[in-house]
Amino acid sequence: MSRRDPLMAVAPNDGRRRAVISSIEPCIDSGLYPIKRVCGEQVIVTAKVFCDGHDQLRSVLCFRQLGQPDWRELPMMQVSEDSWRGSFPVLEVGYYEYTVCAWVDRFLSWRHGLARRTEAADIQVALQIGAELFHSAAMRAAPADAVRLNGWVKSLHDAAQPADAIDLVTQPAADELMARYADRQCATWAPALRVWVDVDKAAFSSWYELFPRSCGQPGEHGTFLDCAAQLAHIAALGFNVVYLPPIHPIGRVQRKGKNNSVVAGADDPGSPWAIGAAEGGHKSVHPQLGTLDDFRRLIAAAKAVGIDIALDIALQCAPDHPYVSAHPEWFRWRPDNTVQYAENPPKKYQDLYPFDFETEAWQALWDELLSIFTFWAEQGVRIFRVDNPHTKPIPFWTWLIAEVKKRYPETLFLAEAFTRPTIMLQLAKIGFSQSYTYFAWRNTKPEITAYFTQLTQTEVHDYFRPNAWPNTPDILTEYLQFGGRPAFMARLVLAATLCANYGIYGPPYETCEATSLEPGSEEYRDSEKYQLRHWDLDQRDSLSDFITRINRIRRDNPALQRDAGLHFYPIDNPLLLAYAKSSEDGSNVIVVVVNLDPHHVQSGWLDLPPEPLGLSTDHAFQVHDLLSDVRLLWQGNRNWIAIDPQAAPAQIFRLRRRVRSERDFDYFL
Amino acid sequence: MSRRDPLMAVAPNDGRRRAVISSIEPCIDSGLYPIKRVCGEQVIVTAKVFCDGHDQLRSVLCFRQLGQPDWRELPMMQVSEDSWRGSFPVLEVGYYEYTVCAWVDRFLSWRHGLARRTEAADIQVALQIGAELFHSAAMRAAPADAVRLNGWVKSLHDAAQPADAIDLVTQPAADELMARYADRQCATWAPALRVWVDVDKAAFSSWYELFPRSCGQPGEHGTFLDCAAQLAHIAALGFNVVYLPPIHPIGRVQRKGKNNSVVAGADDPGSPWAIGAAEGGHKSVHPQLGTLDDFRRLIAAAKAVGIDIALDIALQCAPDHPYVSAHPEWFRWRPDNTVQYAENPPKKYQDLYPFDFETEAWQALWDELLSIFTFWAEQGVRIFRVDNPHTKPIPFWTWLIAEVKKRYPETLFLAEAFTRPTIMLQLAKIGFSQSYTYFAWRNTKPEITAYFTQLTQTEVHDYFRPNAWPNTPDILTEYLQFGGRPAFMARLVLAATLCANYGIYGPPYETCEATSLEPGSEEYRDSEKYQLRHWDLDQRDSLSDFITRINRIRRDNPALQRDAGLHFYPIDNPLLLAYAKSSEDGSNVIVVVVNLDPHHVQSGWLDLPPEPLGLSTDHAFQVHDLLSDVRLLWQGNRNWIAIDPQAAPAQIFRLRRRVRSERDFDYFL
Repeated sequence: MSRRDPLMAVAPNDGRRRAVISSIEPCIDSGLYPIKRVCGEQVIVTAKVFCDGHDQLRSVLCFRQLGQPDWRELPMMQVSEDSWRGSFPVLEVGYYEYTVCAWVDRFLSWRHGLARRTEAADIQVALQIGAELFHSAAMRAAPADAVRLNGWVKSLHDAAQPADAIDLVTQPAADELMARYADRQCATWAPALRVWVDVDKAAFSSWYELFPRSCGQPGEHGTFLDCAAQLAHIAALGFNVVYLPPIHPIGRVQRKGKNNSVVAGADDPGSPWAIGAAEGGHKSVHPQLGTLDDFRRLIAAAKAVGIDIALDIALQCAPDHPYVSAHPEWFRWRPDNTVQYAENPPKKYQDLYPFDFETEAWQALWDELLSIFTFWAEQGVRIFRVDNPHTKPIPFWTWLIAEVKKRYPETLFLAEAFTRPTIMLQLAKIGFSQSYTYFAWRNTKPEITAYFTQLTQTEVHDYFRPNAWPNTPDILTEYLQFGGRPAFMARLVLAATLCANYGIYGPPYETCEATSLEPGSEEYRDSEKYQLRHWDLDQRDSLSDFITRINRIRRDNPALQRDAGLHFYPIDNPLLLAYAKSSEDGSNVIVVVVNLDPHHVQSGWLDLPPEPLGLSTDHAFQVHDLLSDVRLLWQGNRNWIAIDPQAAPAQIFRLRRRVRSERDFDYFL
Repeated sequence: MSRRDPLMAVAPNDGRRRAVISSIEPCIDSGLYPIKRVCGEQVIVTAKVFCDGHDQLRSVLCFRQLGQPDWRELPMMQVSEDSWRGSFPVLEVGYYEYTVCAWVDRFLSWRHGLARRTEAADIQVALQIGAELFHSAAMRAAPADAVRLNGWVKSLHDAAQPADAIDLVTQPAADELMARYADRQCATWAPALRVWVDVDKAAFSSWYELFPRSCGQPGEHGTFLDCAAQLAHIAALGFNVVYLPPIHPIGRVQRKGKNNSVVAGADDPGSPWAIGAAEGGHKSVHPQLGTLDDFRRLIAAAKAVGIDIALDIALQCAPDHPYVSAHPEWFRWRPDNTVQYAENPPKKYQDLYPFDFETEAWQALWDELLSIFTFWAEQGVRIFRVDNPHTKPIPFWTWLIAEVKKRYPETLFLAEAFTRPTIMLQLAKIGFSQSYTYFAWRNTKPEITAYFTQLTQTEVHDYFRPNAWPNTPDILTEYLQFGGRPAFMARLVLAATLCANYGIYGPPYETCEATSLEPGSEEYRDSEKYQLRHWDLDQRDSLSDFITRINRIRRDNPALQRDAGLHFYPIDNPLLLAYAKSSEDGSNVIVVVVNLDPHHVQSGWLDLPPEPLGLSTDHAFQVHDLLSDVRLLWQGNRNWIAIDPQAAPAQIFRLRRRVRSERDFDYFL
């Protein structure tokens, strides 16, 4: 049943609205920001619903796509004293609104009282009142329903015993019609909340980052065409997003040399993040990569193998970016006619200027920056990885993301903000679809447990979608530097199974590149940020088979395609980490145990009560390690785990349920 | 410094507002309801305040009485990353508004950067920028301040070393003037929140309930005059509120007899809650109590000894209430031309009709009910104890309390709603000043600890003021029925020291009346609700001395005059309960230990770390039992407690601090 906006239909201040609705959840900052979901998900809504006295209430969950005139509604169920719950599906990309409507239901209140009446005179009067209620409902009903309702009016008048009447009015058909034609004149509506619905990939994606300029033959500047030639390999690995650092002309003024040196050699290509030169700025393609047409062809080739190209947008300019001369008012000039170069302490970016978002000309600046995103959206880009969004004003992103989504609602934005939690969360609240995380620096059991519990089990989960990266061109952690191949494998398993969204800076990860710029540094030596590299992806000890296996496990198991349903379990060894993830319906359960020590065999007792997972404590159950393909029988709460990191530093078990067949044989699904 | 409403002064959508303000606390339901404070209290406000990038912020706490055009403001301090804190005093009864204003402060950001510059050219440029900032501030400043600011402009131009410049701009005078004349063009304002400020008595009050009709000579119907004669005794006990059950004419139709029998004898006076008869209704005085003039005289006599008379308002009618015939539209008539009597399951009130708040004539009904409150306010009543507010619509109370407070802002409302927590809390949110609690039924250590921790240490404390009653005319608990005098003493200590607001149904409490209607019942036998009683308050084992002592301890110790600052401490005996309360400034600390077993001596080790209370672990400290006047020396974390309930079931220690005098003698304050 659908209804027009009730606020139009009811007198605004009718004092007879006795139902009170409060504490609707999910709700972010009083409804200032929408929650996030993806197409096909259910939005589960809870609320406190109550009224004075001892009357009975009905409550419905109302929802509609934003802009639709009519609300759809589904019943809510009372789950405990004053707490109600309902859910609705979101099927289309865009905003939905939801709210709760409740009213004191005279029919339910009457029926509730009727069952407790004992005196004959009382019962007689009560039946008359009930008949009146059915009669009024009939007056509001469609003709066919009115006939049925009026039939019950007669039956109630005729009922000899209260028990007969109660039988009559508790039958589902009566309940259903009396709910449908309830007197909702004095219903209470809560203020509407919003949910932003994204495409599936917002919640489940596997990213592979590479520098197209390194895709060429050794010593040659790679092109989009060379990059396209890698797509088959990346698709075979199981990734569905390929993320490219900025593809624009690179500044010559203050260009950085190899290993971030402040003086560039004549052949140094510079950092792709130092955007803009005589050849153009944020809407141009670096000539050595090819043409805009080549880029569009790359997008098409990627789409053909199920991959989206994600573009890096870095809102900053090399000193020779055309904006600098054309729009000096967009930069903050110091008394010596220079612009202070960008900093992200302790990092210094001598090769780039930040925009001055406090300029008087902020509106023109905003419009131009928006046009960068829409330009690339017009070329077919639907995923933007935004560089350092936390150094640009939050109101700017709020506006920009909303404007892009108005035109291209399916667009996703990944926030690369490695900063304080408050700001990372705020960027997610105001519209970023996914966010980089502290994952790379969470390496111990208590660190990982605390961090992912917060991300998945608190209200953060309703708007912040973590995207876990074990490495990036800026981050080669000491764990990877010193842990060898097992460390790369362990961190991959963690990223890919803790987080439904994860990514790797691909070529160095596949090849287990672990050489840092200097001791104590997290920078790669001979970083691709400042020079071309050539990666031998066919080398004998490449991780490609392992990566392929992990991505296949993710694809085959719905439990790993969402972040809710993560639960950590005790295991009596501080170097073993154990957790389970389950699908929304509970049918798919994955138990992951990771040996965080890349050097030694570790073992311990895992404490995993089988009953909450739908298994019996009394019978053995099968767990199937999807990495080694070994099947084990476990029984009871405690089972033994031993992991040799040299073989594989993790076990990824799929729980197999014992099913009793028709012939009374046991088998495992 | 005060400012006009900023929303007038700043362009509404300036994209340069980079400061973000969120999570302002205290805040009830997104600011839908005000928090509550009393005159003279500080409102401590915290918020998340942050911006993009690495600039520095300033944040001020803004407040004003509602309706004032100008905001006053006080600085907020950064207490941790992104968290700020400030406080403001509330001095007058009524609404205040408060909010947070923050901006990116160019001066602070510049000063922060200056300290980190090392290159001479950089420093020279930075000093010029600083000089410009001082110059702009001077343009905004009052003439005298402009002179000083311009002086600094010159000094900065002249500064030879950055260190000199930093000394210059970090002096408090520079900081103060640059804060005062900060460029706040792009300041962000959060939406305003409200605090309702009550008179002191809202937070600290001692109630004594009595039936005036029992104040007469034995066998005679007491009058207001007889009641006035009791005031000296009640004032001497230390109470400052006397609460009277309804004082109106009592219905004759369906009048209840002794012990709630449904047939009244000819001489039975009926229940005072069965309001209304031929003599009048809610705005009339029961003739046997005296006249309206007598009532006003009672109020004046009470005021003279520091006591407020609290009146019980019960919005319900005896069948012969004049409203029933004059306004049949305010009642819900059944097909047999009767009205269903009131029920509060399992209780049945055959002698009274509820109003029908769903009547079409609800507006006239609301107006009339409001006029009852304003009528008694005109007679001088400023405290209303509202009977069963949870059986009348919540929107009605929201409106009614607001209307009464518009005319009589100092009025207090005590909600007598023994119902589900959600509803009790909601009534407090929408305006009730104090609330009855579950205290009477919280008798064990875990029960008391959990309940009062929730009431005092969660956000509930910002709007729900508990009023603890060990007994009422409806509640004689089994603990009192079977615990004898020690039980009465223990429950008194608990009520009076756990809760800054407490009350007793006085005469039966003073006399330790413990006879219930029947086994398993919490009703008094021969309850005053249905008959006259005469209480011998001079009896030998009266609790009056003990009550007097408790109330004096409350009066002398600020720690007991507020509910914040309650903390429970472990004691290794489940029948001993220990807690401390401290005054806002921490100078007054009371430690209470209660033996919950009224029958046996109980003892145990109390775990009370002295350091958080400002005492040293290394030295003995004195605790002074204000009940027995015994002084003990305690030392370290664990001290021994033994309590004989026959002597006194509690010890109320005041912590005495050891002070080293000028002459190096130790003494105890």
